[in-house]
Amino acid sequence: EHEIRIFALNSNKPLAEEIAKVIGIPVSESSVKHFSDGEISMNIEESVRGDDIYIIQSTSQPVNENLMELLIMIDALKRASARTINVVMPYYGYARQDRKARSREPITAKLVANLLEVAGATRVVTMDLHAAQIQGFFDIPVDQLMGVPLLATYFEKKNIDPNELVIVSPDHGGVTRARKLAEQLKAPIAIIDKRRPKPNVAEVMNIVGQVDGKIAIIIDDIIDTAGTITLAANALIENGAKQVYACCTHPVLSGPAMERIENSAIEELVVLNTIDLTQRECASKIKQISVARLLAEAIIRVHEQKSISPLFS
Amino acid sequence: EHEIRIFALNSNKPLAEEIAKVIGIPVSESSVKHFSDGEISMNIEESVRGDDIYIIQSTSQPVNENLMELLIMIDALKRASARTINVVMPYYGYARQDRKARSREPITAKLVANLLEVAGATRVVTMDLHAAQIQGFFDIPVDQLMGVPLLATYFEKKNIDPNELVIVSPDHGGVTRARKLAEQLKAPIAIIDKRRPKPNVAEVMNIVGQVDGKIAIIIDDIIDTAGTITLAANALIENGAKQVYACCTHPVLSGPAMERIENSAIEELVVLNTIDLTQRECASKIKQISVARLLAEAIIRVHEQKSISPLFS
Ligand SMILES: Nc1ncnc2c1ncn2[C@@H]1O[C@H](COP(=O)(O)O)[C@@H](O)[C@H]1O
Ligand SMILES: Nc1ncnc2c1ncn2[C@@H]1O[C@H](COP(=O)(O)O)[C@@H](O)[C@H]1O
Repeated sequence: EHEIRIFALNSNKPLAEEIAKVIGIPVSESSVKHFSDGEISMNIEESVRGDDIYIIQSTSQPVNENLMELLIMIDALKRASARTINVVMPYYGYARQDRKARSREPITAKLVANLLEVAGATRVVTMDLHAAQIQGFFDIPVDQLMGVPLLATYFEKKNIDPNELVIVSPDHGGVTRARKLAEQLKAPIAIIDKRRPKPNVAEVMNIVGQVDGKIAIIIDDIIDTAGTITLAANALIENGAKQVYACCTHPVLSGPAMERIENSAIEELVVLNTIDLTQRECASKIKQISVARLLAEAIIRVHEQKSISPLFS
Repeated sequence: EHEIRIFALNSNKPLAEEIAKVIGIPVSESSVKHFSDGEISMNIEESVRGDDIYIIQSTSQPVNENLMELLIMIDALKRASARTINVVMPYYGYARQDRKARSREPITAKLVANLLEVAGATRVVTMDLHAAQIQGFFDIPVDQLMGVPLLATYFEKKNIDPNELVIVSPDHGGVTRARKLAEQLKAPIAIIDKRRPKPNVAEVMNIVGQVDGKIAIIIDDIIDTAGTITLAANALIENGAKQVYACCTHPVLSGPAMERIENSAIEELVVLNTIDLTQRECASKIKQISVARLLAEAIIRVHEQKSISPLFS
């Protein structure tokens, strides 16, 4: 029998602790310090020989620091003869740099995949990749978990009449995700159709679908500066929605996000803890739901060499 | 004919400008910005198709940021069909993490080599690697340039009587480097032999060699917190040296370094500009010598497929 060991890096220690608790093992001892010149000094404090390792690390802000921590830990574990090195990356940083939108752009999401593999990762477990194609950037197995069921379960408890409800995708790219949430909540969907009538004229938000008199739930994968989502909320209210909720898997919430959310028409923003918010001042409207149980179950299934797909049904 | 293009990243733009000037071409246009969430956004602003690219970047502090900038630029250039991607890394960060000193340590210097290769680097040009073995961490050509001749030339101009001079290695690992400087200056060498008489007792600095009444020049590859070098300077004075100079290739100068140097017995600290100091408050004792001509000549020789060894004779 090969032992499971959970290692936590600095991006999301509370989540790692929670996951380990659900599995019923302690987080393994390691320390990440910095030398005087800022170089990372990594110490794995217990033997890992022959073990199956799960490193919990999101490459959220500071992304380059968190990514290097992860790569250096993978290197140390590989040299310490770990049997498998499974990278549990609830949030995959650089996922939006997944294609060349213009000439001579990098494809950093692919670079990150290469870096993880060359360091020695043997599997990646992640959630709601910005583009599902990123799985194909890897030559090792990638398990992608879905946040929608957790968000749906939360909203189910509000007991909103499905006839009163509408699930809103803030753009055409997010329709599949909105449809999944709508299915679980038995509600219809609407889509925000952003158009720029002329160059250098502000975008107009048209709404495709019925929102008048309804309770709207906007869903996205990532909320970053919260510009799109707060403008969408305003457009929904202007079009007669009586209440607007928003939700996402990855609360990046950078720059003006907190302020925008606080000042917006959004009633409540429901997010998962793929990115740690416990160290930040949060807008009081933000409600965070834990992915610990989901990830713990995924880890156990991976360890027992079972498919993770039952976790979504 | 394949064009040479020089690209500059953020660690050492003044050096890149100087190198380009010596070669007689402009630094190519690129921009490194950050998205709101801290992710790097890279833009190569001119065509590089079929060209030979030289990226100037030291992985000095902030090392993880500078390394990621470099990897992302390599990725972008590779996808833009550059013919060769030569990484000119005057200072190679993480070079001191070059072996497992204890169990379960990473070998980050090797990880960095793997990251550069997987990103798409085709050659590395660097200076005074902390351990020459790091060349063997790569499967691509690595050119290592030496700082000693530049430092020697500087001290030659002081016209110190070789009989009055002694070149000091601060530890046994640096003797080869000290000997090279001594050869060029026609001076003898001395070695500082640090010993801890008992555990938990301060180290004693014994000096092997004659320093009484002499002008000493301590030479090291990296000066980081400046602890070793300033203690060595004191020990030399205590042993009768009448003046102490210090020099190194890589002025890391982190933490208390500047203060220690300013308050030390060191007359002058001569360093190369492998690491940019122009943005920092520097101790007035520090004299920086440029490696731009050396690197420019190396780039031209590499481009003309000539050996770089004549640069050291
Ligand atoms: N960290 C980031 N923050 C904001 N925009 C980004 C980021 N990374 C990539 N992008 C841009 O976002 C676009 C991709 O977004 P999307 O169309 O939603 O897949 C591309 O044009 C990228 O240049
Ligand atoms: N950035 C750093 N700053 C200080 N010490 C380091 C750094 N990186 C590695 N080391 C340590 O320095 C030692 C190697 O130095 P050396 O014996 O001079 O090759 C190893 O024990 C490393 O753990």
